[in-house]
Amino acid sequence: MIAEIICVGTELLMGQVLNTNAQFLSRELAGLGITQRHQQVVGDNAERLEAAYRLALSRADVVITSGGLGPTVDDITKRVAARVAGRELVLRPEAEQMVRERFRQYHREMLPNNMSQAMFTPDSKVLLNPYGTAPGAIVPVGNGQFIVHLPGPPRELQPLFREQVKPWLAERSGRTLVSRYIRIFGLGESDVDNRLRRLEEGGNPTLSPYCSTGEVMLRATASAETEAAAEALLTPLVSEVQAALGDAIYDIRSDDSGSMARAAVEALRAGGLKVCTAESLTGGLIAATMVEVPGASEAVKGGFVTYMTESKTELLGVPAEVIEKYNVVSAEVAAAMAEGARARLGVDIAVSATGLAGPGGGTPERPVGTVFVGICSPLGTRTLPLRLSGDRPRIRELTVKHALNAVRLEALQLKGKQQK
Amino acid sequence: MIAEIICVGTELLMGQVLNTNAQFLSRELAGLGITQRHQQVVGDNAERLEAAYRLALSRADVVITSGGLGPTVDDITKRVAARVAGRELVLRPEAEQMVRERFRQYHREMLPNNMSQAMFTPDSKVLLNPYGTAPGAIVPVGNGQFIVHLPGPPRELQPLFREQVKPWLAERSGRTLVSRYIRIFGLGESDVDNRLRRLEEGGNPTLSPYCSTGEVMLRATASAETEAAAEALLTPLVSEVQAALGDAIYDIRSDDSGSMARAAVEALRAGGLKVCTAESLTGGLIAATMVEVPGASEAVKGGFVTYMTESKTELLGVPAEVIEKYNVVSAEVAAAMAEGARARLGVDIAVSATGLAGPGGGTPERPVGTVFVGICSPLGTRTLPLRLSGDRPRIRELTVKHALNAVRLEALQLKGKQQK
Repeated sequence: MIAEIICVGTELLMGQVLNTNAQFLSRELAGLGITQRHQQVVGDNAERLEAAYRLALSRADVVITSGGLGPTVDDITKRVAARVAGRELVLRPEAEQMVRERFRQYHREMLPNNMSQAMFTPDSKVLLNPYGTAPGAIVPVGNGQFIVHLPGPPRELQPLFREQVKPWLAERSGRTLVSRYIRIFGLGESDVDNRLRRLEEGGNPTLSPYCSTGEVMLRATASAETEAAAEALLTPLVSEVQAALGDAIYDIRSDDSGSMARAAVEALRAGGLKVCTAESLTGGLIAATMVEVPGASEAVKGGFVTYMTESKTELLGVPAEVIEKYNVVSAEVAAAMAEGARARLGVDIAVSATGLAGPGGGTPERPVGTVFVGICSPLGTRTLPLRLSGDRPRIRELTVKHALNAVRLEALQLKGKQQK
Repeated sequence: MIAEIICVGTELLMGQVLNTNAQFLSRELAGLGITQRHQQVVGDNAERLEAAYRLALSRADVVITSGGLGPTVDDITKRVAARVAGRELVLRPEAEQMVRERFRQYHREMLPNNMSQAMFTPDSKVLLNPYGTAPGAIVPVGNGQFIVHLPGPPRELQPLFREQVKPWLAERSGRTLVSRYIRIFGLGESDVDNRLRRLEEGGNPTLSPYCSTGEVMLRATASAETEAAAEALLTPLVSEVQAALGDAIYDIRSDDSGSMARAAVEALRAGGLKVCTAESLTGGLIAATMVEVPGASEAVKGGFVTYMTESKTELLGVPAEVIEKYNVVSAEVAAAMAEGARARLGVDIAVSATGLAGPGGGTPERPVGTVFVGICSPLGTRTLPLRLSGDRPRIRELTVKHALNAVRLEALQLKGKQQK
């Protein structure tokens, strides 16, 4: 099966929005084993959109659109698709009910033109949208081909695709796909590459790498006629990856919702442990990243942002002499920050970070990117010296990941001790 | 002039990278007043790329490519463009020198195939790349049409475009462009739309809206033969916008580097003022957003993350009775948090936030999105009750913007008092 994505909207051509939908849909299609050869972006122009549809249908089985499902005259995605299908748009009662309900729920007044959002060709499969006012649809256009309409906002498009389009695509391709998302910290892409020779060899199961700041994620996907058969294909590959990468793997799950913050918060919760932070260069980002994880309120007690040097003494009791003697960017100060924070908040684990995010302030001895992470728990205090590279936001982001990894490892160790 | 962007790379079709280049180039082209009607993404396949070039050249004057300039057999962008131009690739000495220099500089070994990175058609204008190993080029393809090659990594593509392609495009269109980026907080897009009837009317100068979380940015752009003439066109439009939107405008500058965090930090620095934070639902994000601004170290002293209820009492001295009586999400607690933080850190301004980010925890009286921002300074303590909508990250992001705006306004008022 070949698919092609058409993103519709003049705002994309003007650069007003970033096309995250194309990436999301591409990843999902790749995960389903569906080939993609082209993507198009067109503005809100009926003639050009029709040409884009016809071009896509000349080379793909399924065309997936995002955007242009609203009530205004600029919203032409459905109208033009109906023309390509050779059908009229008619009011679909199930869609009408959904649209009315959504407007009631959002306390928004319905205008007559909002009813256009409930109109589809008679043989379309309507995708009821619990996340917004515009339903999507799977529109047959003849020759066994389809145009799938999804709303533009990612918070609507993503769940709608996952819940309603993905199962339909999987069923049509007659295959069941099972994946494992394997998250790796502390190894670069080339390290992972060297240790795993079969990376990106293709075939079934497949193993594809995705890189983000300081991390590599591997997606292992197997396709088979049944879930059990797919699992059977997947298991030896996952074992092989585990044998090759060992402790560098911090999370394995069957969807891509994992993250270092989630792994840290889950390790804390599993041990019934509480954490606090003492942050200098990250300015609150370690704590803010943890509280993004639902359920963090059981694990994250609070923390300190000690950005100016004197605040480290005032809030955390780091002795001015220690700062004077060792420098504010030092293992000693990181240790004293973590100890001070833990004593003040009475938690199990305190994590701290001090360092130089740049662009200025570097010296030959302490270049930009010099960072110390401190960790303090009933197991004692230890520090992690880091030499990070990149610009200001990247150095911060890497510091946060190292700090969260330190919290995760400490929580696992404490839990292990509890069990003895 | 009509331009079309073709992004080349199977990694885009696999969803392994987000296509930020398309957005960057689209914004830049819009800023130059160059029309764009289509974008394409194609994989590393010569036949399909050639078809994409021919399609683009059937409807655009300039085709801009990103990616595929490396030394491997998969890097086909230049080779296929040369075929379309009907020319051979030849080694260009200035490009060869650049490539050799870059490898020396990066301490990387040069392989024989790296020389292919220095090959272009004889009449191409080579774009020497100070940011990476692959030069770009402007390739004439006949009929007064061009294919422009840019490297894929955004940190190379962006400066190369701004420094070498943009002036060439401006010169070809015979115009100079001057812009103002006007940032607005507290008004929705439809409010801005209603107050400014000439929005998106086109013509010269143009006024285009860009929306992001809780904010609208207007870009006013004038095009003329000289910069002075463009400025003269722009001035009345900017005055008109100022008259219509008044205090909702928080920043105007000639590039798009403004942000609420920058405006807040600049207002603090202008008044020689220091700030601290006391954060509950945002978990450190208000402070972390401020310290992203270079120069924040002169204005941001530090802060407190008081995520669990008891930490508000322990760290900030918020009386347990106040929390008991008014609820932890209340104006009274927000006020006590700000006052406690200011007293403890001895700064000019303290800002606090307490609220419900969801998804759980809402009640009819305090639904998810109920947030109180507190601000405390020599002018006294005040609180800002907010009812925000959206998911967890959006409620946090909106809270941060409201808090930073409150800091900005307080700093401006304090500075005004200093001057009296």
